[in-house]
Amino acid sequence: MEETFVPFRGIKNDLRGRLLCYKQDWTGGFSAGFRILAPTTYIFFASAIPVISFGEQLERNTDGVLTAVQTLASTAICGIIHSIIGGQPLLILGVAEPTVIMYTFMFNFAKQRPDLGRDLFLAWSGWVCVWTAALLFLLAILGACSIINRFTRLAGELFGMLIAMLFMQQAIKGIVEEFRIPKRENANSIEFTPSWRFANGMFALVLSFGLLITALRSRKARSWRYGTGWLRSLIADYGVPIMVLVWTGVSYIPSQSVPKGIPRRLFSPNPWTPGAYENWTVIKEMLDMPILYIFGAFIPATMIAVLYYFDHSVASQLAQQKDFNLRKPASFHYDLLLLGFLTLMCGLIGIPPSNGVIPQSPMHTKSLATLKHQLLRNRLVATARESLKSNSSLSQLYGNMQEAYRWMQTPLIYQHSSPIGLKEMKESTIQLASSSGHIDAPVDETHFDIDKEIDELLPVEVKEQRLSNLLQATMVGGCVAAMPVLRMIPTSVLWGYFAYMAIESLPGNQFWERILLLFTAPSRRYKVLEDYHASFVETVPFKAIATFTLFQTVYLLACFGITWVPIAGLLFPLLIMLLVPIRQYVLPKFFKGLHLQDLDAADYEEAPAVPFSLPTEDEVGASASSIGGGGSGEILDEIMTRSRGEIKHISSPKVTSLTASPAPQDLSPRFAGRAYSPRIRRLRGERSPLSGIKGGGGGAFSPAST
Amino acid sequence: MEETFVPFRGIKNDLRGRLLCYKQDWTGGFSAGFRILAPTTYIFFASAIPVISFGEQLERNTDGVLTAVQTLASTAICGIIHSIIGGQPLLILGVAEPTVIMYTFMFNFAKQRPDLGRDLFLAWSGWVCVWTAALLFLLAILGACSIINRFTRLAGELFGMLIAMLFMQQAIKGIVEEFRIPKRENANSIEFTPSWRFANGMFALVLSFGLLITALRSRKARSWRYGTGWLRSLIADYGVPIMVLVWTGVSYIPSQSVPKGIPRRLFSPNPWTPGAYENWTVIKEMLDMPILYIFGAFIPATMIAVLYYFDHSVASQLAQQKDFNLRKPASFHYDLLLLGFLTLMCGLIGIPPSNGVIPQSPMHTKSLATLKHQLLRNRLVATARESLKSNSSLSQLYGNMQEAYRWMQTPLIYQHSSPIGLKEMKESTIQLASSSGHIDAPVDETHFDIDKEIDELLPVEVKEQRLSNLLQATMVGGCVAAMPVLRMIPTSVLWGYFAYMAIESLPGNQFWERILLLFTAPSRRYKVLEDYHASFVETVPFKAIATFTLFQTVYLLACFGITWVPIAGLLFPLLIMLLVPIRQYVLPKFFKGLHLQDLDAADYEEAPAVPFSLPTEDEVGASASSIGGGGSGEILDEIMTRSRGEIKHISSPKVTSLTASPAPQDLSPRFAGRAYSPRIRRLRGERSPLSGIKGGGGGAFSPAST
Repeated sequence: MEETFVPFRGIKNDLRGRLLCYKQDWTGGFSAGFRILAPTTYIFFASAIPVISFGEQLERNTDGVLTAVQTLASTAICGIIHSIIGGQPLLILGVAEPTVIMYTFMFNFAKQRPDLGRDLFLAWSGWVCVWTAALLFLLAILGACSIINRFTRLAGELFGMLIAMLFMQQAIKGIVEEFRIPKRENANSIEFTPSWRFANGMFALVLSFGLLITALRSRKARSWRYGTGWLRSLIADYGVPIMVLVWTGVSYIPSQSVPKGIPRRLFSPNPWTPGAYENWTVIKEMLDMPILYIFGAFIPATMIAVLYYFDHSVASQLAQQKDFNLRKPASFHYDLLLLGFLTLMCGLIGIPPSNGVIPQSPMHTKSLATLKHQLLRNRLVATARESLKSNSSLSQLYGNMQEAYRWMQTPLIYQHSSPIGLKEMKESTIQLASSSGHIDAPVDETHFDIDKEIDELLPVEVKEQRLSNLLQATMVGGCVAAMPVLRMIPTSVLWGYFAYMAIESLPGNQFWERILLLFTAPSRRYKVLEDYHASFVETVPFKAIATFTLFQTVYLLACFGITWVPIAGLLFPLLIMLLVPIRQYVLPKFFKGLHLQDLDAADYEEAPAVPFSLPTEDEVGASASSIGGGGSGEILDEIMTRSRGEIKHISSPKVTSLTASPAPQDLSPRFAGRAYSPRIRRLRGERSPLSGIKGGGGGAFSPAST
Repeated sequence: MEETFVPFRGIKNDLRGRLLCYKQDWTGGFSAGFRILAPTTYIFFASAIPVISFGEQLERNTDGVLTAVQTLASTAICGIIHSIIGGQPLLILGVAEPTVIMYTFMFNFAKQRPDLGRDLFLAWSGWVCVWTAALLFLLAILGACSIINRFTRLAGELFGMLIAMLFMQQAIKGIVEEFRIPKRENANSIEFTPSWRFANGMFALVLSFGLLITALRSRKARSWRYGTGWLRSLIADYGVPIMVLVWTGVSYIPSQSVPKGIPRRLFSPNPWTPGAYENWTVIKEMLDMPILYIFGAFIPATMIAVLYYFDHSVASQLAQQKDFNLRKPASFHYDLLLLGFLTLMCGLIGIPPSNGVIPQSPMHTKSLATLKHQLLRNRLVATARESLKSNSSLSQLYGNMQEAYRWMQTPLIYQHSSPIGLKEMKESTIQLASSSGHIDAPVDETHFDIDKEIDELLPVEVKEQRLSNLLQATMVGGCVAAMPVLRMIPTSVLWGYFAYMAIESLPGNQFWERILLLFTAPSRRYKVLEDYHASFVETVPFKAIATFTLFQTVYLLACFGITWVPIAGLLFPLLIMLLVPIRQYVLPKFFKGLHLQDLDAADYEEAPAVPFSLPTEDEVGASASSIGGGGSGEILDEIMTRSRGEIKHISSPKVTSLTASPAPQDLSPRFAGRAYSPRIRRLRGERSPLSGIKGGGGGAFSPAST
């Protein structure tokens, strides 16, 4: 992404890039068939459950002016609009915690003013939204998102960890609350006697830990040993919703012997009662507002604008991390512009606005990577089976698979850039095979374990489309109608789900992995390398890794501490933005450039940004590879979703091609260990063709440098 | 073991065999140093906790005549005596559930008779013990244990599963009871109001599942990635006791806000109160008994004798399974004779007798195998490090390790039989290495990953000694003194521990593994082969495995059903004994001999028993290898404790040696797949020397038959 501050240029670039793939965004979604429902349902739950919980919080804090109905409506409407006309369809929108805190603050302020009060609160917050929207327009037009470019892993992953901590904090708070008397309830009811409160708390512990443990397990079902394939897929795809159902069912088991209200359940208004929609006409009241308050609204608006600018862009960035190998362009400026419109709209109809949310957005991308992996895999397995039946040789087999793989590619990209991934892997495999003279002999299943082989070959790719986002937003909208059913869910299941989301967001976060590395016994550090293929473990001295990670941890704790400060705490994004200059000017004084680059690659240090001013179709290919590849020497051989959806790590083909014809800068020692990693992995696959046909060539490839 | 019914011959043989290694039984224990405390503590908990719980059950059932103090005392006294003068020191003695049921029945009978009553109950049960002891003497002298020889896996593992089910049943019953009002308590106390009962039940769920999950996890600590080595070892070795402490601590957290009695804790008498020992003088009352009752005691005595004969022998057999590669001889007859004396003694001092218990006895052997593994491993790692430092070649390295390994062997065995295990593995490795010309080149750590390599080389061996048994029994005795402390343990922690014991006893039970196999997706069955190296998966058609397993499962459920029948249920051992003729005469009509042999090897079908009449030192070696090896074609390449103590499976060296010079009967197809298994496994070890030095020879070894 170009760092340009020429007005409108960023928006124009974004629009051009996304329009090129707009049609494919839809056809790609529909071509996935019913399987698209798996990521959709997964993200729907991740999106709806926190929104409901934030709605409940808002209801308590605003004396019932805003409820879960409004937060759900905002999430649904903004989500639907964004999924249709938004730039980056991987981005998930929703009402988030900072919005709730800001609205709480604004309500408390309005309630104290006799000329505003509870009645005019929504009108005043409408004005706040107007100003926020104006500021967001300004930021979008002036190209403020170019700065996102300067956001490295350091800041993004720290932010991701912070969100995970906040979710976990909410889960713990929630469970502790189950032992106490809720504020809005009558403290004299039977369920709040000490014994029933204690019983409720213990029941809550059972339900939340039950949900947490079973949900975490069910996501790994694909690698279970038991049950048929379709059952394992079903559980892996829909395990979390199923577990919410199961534990809600469990919560009804003792209903005979406990008073009503144990366990506590969601407290949401019935949207079908009259008056539930009276705030939707808030626009009429906005003009009755004293002029002072209209301008005074500018002050909270600046805070919200900074917050949204930051949250929205970082959520979008985290959904498009390099590890995902995305092919379609980003759209930061245009999305910020659209967010401005959405905020304006929400303000005018009196509902809290939505913005891009973490961790749901990266979770969305991850689940689509799993989907794409399955689609590719099914096709390749079928092709390989056919080839084996017709007694093909190994080279024919790979040829056929190659063909099938090309066929599956996004057509747009396929025409202009060679399909990466499979081809190079094939070549290196064939090279090895041919050296032992087996290349043209017919292969059979004993030499070629289809399932294993294909899993190893497949690169990480994401099914980039708009359908899943549209569907999940529509389902969130459906929640408003289904509120009477949702009220059956125990709050403790919610807390378990919050903890689940926090834990689920950790794998793939390299910061988290480095923290774990600090606690890993030295003799077992190589295992980290095996699992995440975290190349920095090989290239950076442990002391540097430890120092860097400790610095980041201390900074994280500082940010976490700031969130506890009543209102100033909302501005923790500024603290995180401070990381950009720290990364650029301070850290290089303490760490070697090469180490820093390995721990936290910064595009600006490595290669000039690819210009984005000629949006021809060629350009799309280039920009896609710039998103996917970064600098020329960048290696993308880790993938994060492994333990989730059984996506295997795969070296970027660049590694192989670079090895074949090494450019001068690629002779640095850090390449020696990596270039052979595909083969090392292959060796571990007991039934890979190599173990059958490997011969004299083996010695030359021995990983002498490891 | 010879099938002889010549009076006293079995006892004599046992005594001769064990006397030869008696000294080593002690020196071996002391030479392990403080590490012996790990298996000791582990078994102490596994032994003491059920005994306390059975004691509580007995106290309720006998109106307080017998309590946990008596059951603990019996377990401790019998355990100490057995560990010192018993035959097989791996066998753990304790008061078991069948004893409790029999004593309950006897108490109910005595209470109804006015001329016996509560007061003379202990005297009468003394007479029952006298008769039981007489019957046990008879059985031991006449060589009844020779029949144990005919007990195959089929019966032994079914019994093991049944015990696991009974433990699990007890755990579930216990947790359900936590929601109810206990019988002996005053139903009007505050902690039995519906709300506190519900709270208590939920708290019990939290505590028992907490203990269960953390205990299961802690046993796997050795393979954790985090923490230093000693911490991981500490947690793996002492995790279960630590978790009992931790969860007992947790149970005190809400003590401020809950009434006394929540959660429920152990209800054991204080042994320091006067009168606690009045039953120890029961021998005086035994002569006051009406003569009719003295002879009437013969009837329950027959039942107890059958029960003890069976339980004691099977517990001993399960503790000496072939997979453990034990080197020292068994001692069924002599141990049964000793059990007779112990029963007599317990009867005369008015405490319930102890017998060999399952699953504690096999757990004991498993934990000692882990210990031996560690000791061997430490020594070999040190040797390998030294060799690497002095730039040895691969053959020198293996030579040095071989030397160290020999040094560690039980000297008795070492002199007369070649140390199995390491040598043959070394040879096959060197054979491969030399074919690529690397054998004499100096190796370094990049080619030889010490930790991994040694884990693969080490065979399963058990630290056979008497010290751990003596110590654990002494600690059980200490429990009597520590009763006031033990009473702090919540009963729910007990139920969690029962569930833990049930689950802990399953891995390694091939019956259980076959049940799992039925639920395994066909495409993933090969993983079972990888993990347990369950050779039958390769050699027996799946349909035969399924039929066999279903038959066994139905039989298991029948046995489990029988235990629910009030008193007749006690005689379920007879149903299990019935499996011996079924296995011998009925099953061969439904299954092919070869398949049956693979699923359930029976010594009598395969090879004549090794005579045991010449107990020279040579003989000990032979008998050791007959215990360890079975018939000449027998292959022992599975080991059960893998997920527990990180013992690796290893092929018996016999496979390799047979492959080198195949005897005619070894050409059967079932060997083809197995013979190469060490190499297949080796290939999977990324950094094994083979992946570095493997060369032209590789093709010839390709697992073409798999």
